[in-house]
Amino acid sequence: MIFFQKSKRIMRTFNELYKLIDNGLKNELYQNNTEPEGLYKPIKYILRNGGKRIRPALVLMAANLFTNKIDHFIKPALALEVFHNFTLLHDDIMDDSPLRRGKPTVHTEWNNNTAILSGDAMAILAYQCLEHTPTEVYPQVMNVFNHTSLKVCEGQQYDMEFETRQDVRLDEYLTMIRLKTAELLAGSLKIGAVLGGADGKNADLLYDFGINLGIAFQIKDDCLDTFGDFKKFGKRIGNDIIENKKTFLLIKAFELAKGTILEELKELIFVNQSKQEYKVKRVTEIFRELKIDEICDKEMNLYFKNAMHKLESVDIDKEKKIELEILAKKFIHRDK
Amino acid sequence: MIFFQKSKRIMRTFNELYKLIDNGLKNELYQNNTEPEGLYKPIKYILRNGGKRIRPALVLMAANLFTNKIDHFIKPALALEVFHNFTLLHDDIMDDSPLRRGKPTVHTEWNNNTAILSGDAMAILAYQCLEHTPTEVYPQVMNVFNHTSLKVCEGQQYDMEFETRQDVRLDEYLTMIRLKTAELLAGSLKIGAVLGGADGKNADLLYDFGINLGIAFQIKDDCLDTFGDFKKFGKRIGNDIIENKKTFLLIKAFELAKGTILEELKELIFVNQSKQEYKVKRVTEIFRELKIDEICDKEMNLYFKNAMHKLESVDIDKEKKIELEILAKKFIHRDK
Repeated sequence: MIFFQKSKRIMRTFNELYKLIDNGLKNELYQNNTEPEGLYKPIKYILRNGGKRIRPALVLMAANLFTNKIDHFIKPALALEVFHNFTLLHDDIMDDSPLRRGKPTVHTEWNNNTAILSGDAMAILAYQCLEHTPTEVYPQVMNVFNHTSLKVCEGQQYDMEFETRQDVRLDEYLTMIRLKTAELLAGSLKIGAVLGGADGKNADLLYDFGINLGIAFQIKDDCLDTFGDFKKFGKRIGNDIIENKKTFLLIKAFELAKGTILEELKELIFVNQSKQEYKVKRVTEIFRELKIDEICDKEMNLYFKNAMHKLESVDIDKEKKIELEILAKKFIHRDK
Repeated sequence: MIFFQKSKRIMRTFNELYKLIDNGLKNELYQNNTEPEGLYKPIKYILRNGGKRIRPALVLMAANLFTNKIDHFIKPALALEVFHNFTLLHDDIMDDSPLRRGKPTVHTEWNNNTAILSGDAMAILAYQCLEHTPTEVYPQVMNVFNHTSLKVCEGQQYDMEFETRQDVRLDEYLTMIRLKTAELLAGSLKIGAVLGGADGKNADLLYDFGINLGIAFQIKDDCLDTFGDFKKFGKRIGNDIIENKKTFLLIKAFELAKGTILEELKELIFVNQSKQEYKVKRVTEIFRELKIDEICDKEMNLYFKNAMHKLESVDIDKEKKIELEILAKKFIHRDK
C-alpha cells in the first residue's frame, strides 16, 4: 500500500508549472487591482513582459518533492515572481536601463516616479499573494521571504557600491551575487519545501542547493556576456566590459594579470573611454590569454557540483528530483 | 472580583507610549542591520529624525482598550512607523522635497538611488517587525497591513495625478486623502484592536474612527498651510498656494467662486508664475472672501464628530477611551 502511494507521486515538469504560473498571474494580478490605472498599468506591463518564471517554478517544484497537492500553492508561489519583478523595476531605475526583455523599461515608458511607486505597490502585492499560504506554515514562510527579500536589497547595494570601487575582491563579488541573485532562488526553494511539508533539514538542503545553483547561474551569466554567441544570447556581447562591470571575469583577470598585461588592462578599463569595439575585442583577448574562460567554467562547475550534492542529500527518492536536476542543468548549459 | 479586575486596566498615555516606541526603535532597528552601511545608514537617519510616532502609538492605544498586556505588541507596532517613514522617503524623491522635519531628505543627503533602495529595505523591515505578531492573529494583522499599505500607494498615485489636473473634484480629493493619510491611521487602530483581542465589530469601529479622524487631520493640515501662524507652524505659510496644490481650500474655492473672482483665481493659479508673495496674499484674501476658512473648519469638525461617534460606539468602558479622545482632539486643535 505504501509502495502504491509512493508511485502515485506526480512530478510536474517545468513547462507544466510555467503554464500554471502564467494562468495564476492572469487570474490573480491582471484582473484585480485596476484603479488607479496609472499605478497598476505599469505593474501589469512588466509582469506580462515575459520572464522565465523560474522562482515560482522553484517554489512549486520544491513543494512537489514532498506532496502532490501543489495547486493551492500557486498563489504564494506568485509572490516570488512579483517580488522579483519589483526588484527589476527598481534596479532598472537605479541602473538607468532603457530596455528589459527587449521592451522599454517602466521608467522609460512612463517616468521615474511612476516606476518608484508602481514598484512599491508590487512589493505589497507580493505580500498579498503570500496571504494565501496555509496558516500552519504562514509564519515560517514569511520569515524566509522577509529574510530573503532583505538580502536581495543588500546585494543590490553592494552591486551599486562596486560601480565606483576599483578594488573589489573576488570574495566580495561572490557575496554580492549570493545576496543579489542566489538568495531569491534559494528562498524560493525553501519556501516551496516549507509549503510542501518538508522538515527543517530538507528545507535547508534545498536552500543550500539554491545558493550554490544561484552563484553558478550568475557566473554563467558573466561568461555569456563576454564569450556568448550574439545570435543565441540576444544581447550585445561585451556589455559588461564596456561598462567596466566588476564581474567574475574582470576581478579574476586583475588577480592574475601581471606586468604589461596588467598595465594594458588598467589602461583599457579605467582610462580608455572611447573605441568600445577595440576595448571589447582586446579585453576579451586578455581574458583568453589569462584563461579566464576556463577558470570561469571551472568555478561555475564547482558551485554546480556543490548544488547537486545538496540536492542529492535531500531525503527523498532520487527519481523525484529529476525535474529539479533538469532545470539546474539548463541553468548552466544555456547559451542565452 | 470582576469589578476589581476591571478597575485594574492601566491606560497608557500617549507620552508613555512614545517612550516605549522610541526605545523599541533603538533596540530593534538602530542596533541590528549594520552592513552594508550604505543601505542601513539612511534608514537610521530618517527614523532618528524625529516624527510624532502617531501610528505605532495608535496601535498600542487601540490594543490597550482591550488588554493591559501591550508590551509585547511594541515590535509589531513599530512596523507602522517604519512603513510610514518608508512612504515619506519615497514621497520625498517623487516630490523632490529638499527638507523633512527641518533636515535634508535622504535623496538630498545621499542620492536618488540610495533613497529608492533604502526605502525598499525599510518596507521589508516593516514586515520583519510584524513577524513578532502573536501567531493566532498574524494572518489577520497581515491582511489589514497589506490592504492599508496598498491603499497608501493608491493615494500617492492620485496625489501625483492631481498635480497635472485642473479639474479635481472635492469627492476625488477626499478619496485621495482617505487613501494617502487616513488609511494608515485607520489601519494602525485596527491592527491594534486585533492584537488586543477585539472582536470584528469593535475593530471595524476603530478603523472607521481612524478614517474619519485622518480626513479631519488632513483638512486641518490644509488649513494650517494657508491660515496658520508661521511662528507656531514652523513652516512657510502659503506653500500649497505657491505650488497650486489641489487642497480642500482651493477645490472648494473653485466650486464657489463666480464671475470676476473666479477669473482672478484662475489667473493667480494657472497663469501667474511670478510674484509669489502677492499670489499668497491675494489667494488667501479670496479664500476669506469666499469664507473658505469657515467652511474648512466646519467640514473638519464634521469628520471629527463622525470619528468621535465611531469611538463612542466601541463596546468598551467610556473611561478607557479617554487617551484616544485626548489624542484625537490634539489632532484638530493643533496649530502646528
